[in-house]
Amino acid sequence: MSGQTGLSAAEIEAIVATAQACADAARSETLRHFRRAETVAETKGDQGFDPVTVADRAAESAMRALIEAQRPDDAILGEEFARREGTSGLTWVLDPIDGTRGYISGTPTWGVLVSVADRHGPLYGLIDQPYIGERFEGGFGRASLVGPRGHQSIATRPPRPLAEATLLTTFPEVGSPAEGRAFRAVAAQARLTRYGLDCYAYALLAAGQIDLVIEAGLHPYDIHAPIAVIQAAGGLVTDWDGGPAHEGGQVIAAANPSIHAEALALLRAAFDG
Amino acid sequence: MSGQTGLSAAEIEAIVATAQACADAARSETLRHFRRAETVAETKGDQGFDPVTVADRAAESAMRALIEAQRPDDAILGEEFARREGTSGLTWVLDPIDGTRGYISGTPTWGVLVSVADRHGPLYGLIDQPYIGERFEGGFGRASLVGPRGHQSIATRPPRPLAEATLLTTFPEVGSPAEGRAFRAVAAQARLTRYGLDCYAYALLAAGQIDLVIEAGLHPYDIHAPIAVIQAAGGLVTDWDGGPAHEGGQVIAAANPSIHAEALALLRAAFDG
Repeated sequence: MSGQTGLSAAEIEAIVATAQACADAARSETLRHFRRAETVAETKGDQGFDPVTVADRAAESAMRALIEAQRPDDAILGEEFARREGTSGLTWVLDPIDGTRGYISGTPTWGVLVSVADRHGPLYGLIDQPYIGERFEGGFGRASLVGPRGHQSIATRPPRPLAEATLLTTFPEVGSPAEGRAFRAVAAQARLTRYGLDCYAYALLAAGQIDLVIEAGLHPYDIHAPIAVIQAAGGLVTDWDGGPAHEGGQVIAAANPSIHAEALALLRAAFDG
Repeated sequence: MSGQTGLSAAEIEAIVATAQACADAARSETLRHFRRAETVAETKGDQGFDPVTVADRAAESAMRALIEAQRPDDAILGEEFARREGTSGLTWVLDPIDGTRGYISGTPTWGVLVSVADRHGPLYGLIDQPYIGERFEGGFGRASLVGPRGHQSIATRPPRPLAEATLLTTFPEVGSPAEGRAFRAVAAQARLTRYGLDCYAYALLAAGQIDLVIEAGLHPYDIHAPIAVIQAAGGLVTDWDGGPAHEGGQVIAAANPSIHAEALALLRAAFDG
């Protein structure tokens, strides 16, 4: 038995195998439509712009079918379809394409998010970039990347001052005007701020390439897998009050407690102020 | 002889071979340092933030050595070292790492830019993304992508209204405040605006994934290769007055003349106004 989770080694192995199978299935479903003309067809005529692609649904369906077959007692929370209840105490949290706007623009920084949580939060997660063929894994004592360079262990960066740190987020406006102002209070002190990477930003944080990701308006399925991967690699993810982040909303992910504290203080002061 | 350039088929073949060899050499030099701890060492203590990495210089040196050996009469204009004069009328324009900020953040959307120009502008270019293993090629009748899916022909998108178009740029502020306002006048009418991709934005335009890239403050070596690849794929690249863009500065790259005209009119009205 693993003390923290109460799961046996065999059960952990089974969960990991199902998660990897889900990511494999989603990889093939998402790549089938990536950079093809028909991908954007369903978004035409939408109010505003909320792309939901054929690939999104096909990938989630494929993952759900695997989980229902291999883990029939587990619950499922996915972006595209209704919640499935379970009895095991474990919930699979799935985002078949995190970064649909990037996906329909042909960028290689969207991802498939697969994770497993208990009632305390994420236990294990995968961030998969199908086009590059890169998979970031974290949880159950694992923190790794499989990609163009083979299999590597990953670890977040050691502490450095915010003035030497790199900060990523997806949308320059970040969230509400007040949230945007709070973000910019941190960005103004950071060495470098970059935009537009969706879940790939969290993967880069877990892999020790950057120091901070700050976002707002997230859904639970956007952040569950990143939390698992980042925590396993030595980082931390909280909401803007320093509490648990797995319900989504305002999120700050940091490479280490030191940069987390420095950025969170600025963020809170600017958001409250 | 090829009518437009006055170059024989054999000479074209030799130029293409040298360009590909340059991109291969730069790929290995840039990957050697990508996502390694020492990459950012030289940027410490800089005024502002203008990362110049060991990899940048090593990659340009490797390309220059190849060109000097294989094309001794050609001129060379590169980001990192002094201009080399030539007698052939051809100039190699090199950017060993376009997107150094992305590079030091670990993103997979920086690139190596290799191109050849005569006195009228770019003839042939490559945009190479070493980590993904993707190379976009354009010029001398070729327009192609070699990457995870093998070899494919590429072509820009057919016309669509700006209201249905995707617009990319690298920095949200774009350039000066006036340039930023002009950019936002176009962005406000576009369906989707994304940030942060450096040269990969031009590659996506050439590959038919997006409609527009608008930037300001570019250097000649930032835009030569993108011009060659985009023109070969059916698109066009001009400055904000509709004139040649290969000297850098303000650039608008478009998938087709229709979207170019619609965006340029808004851009000019907002910039002049």
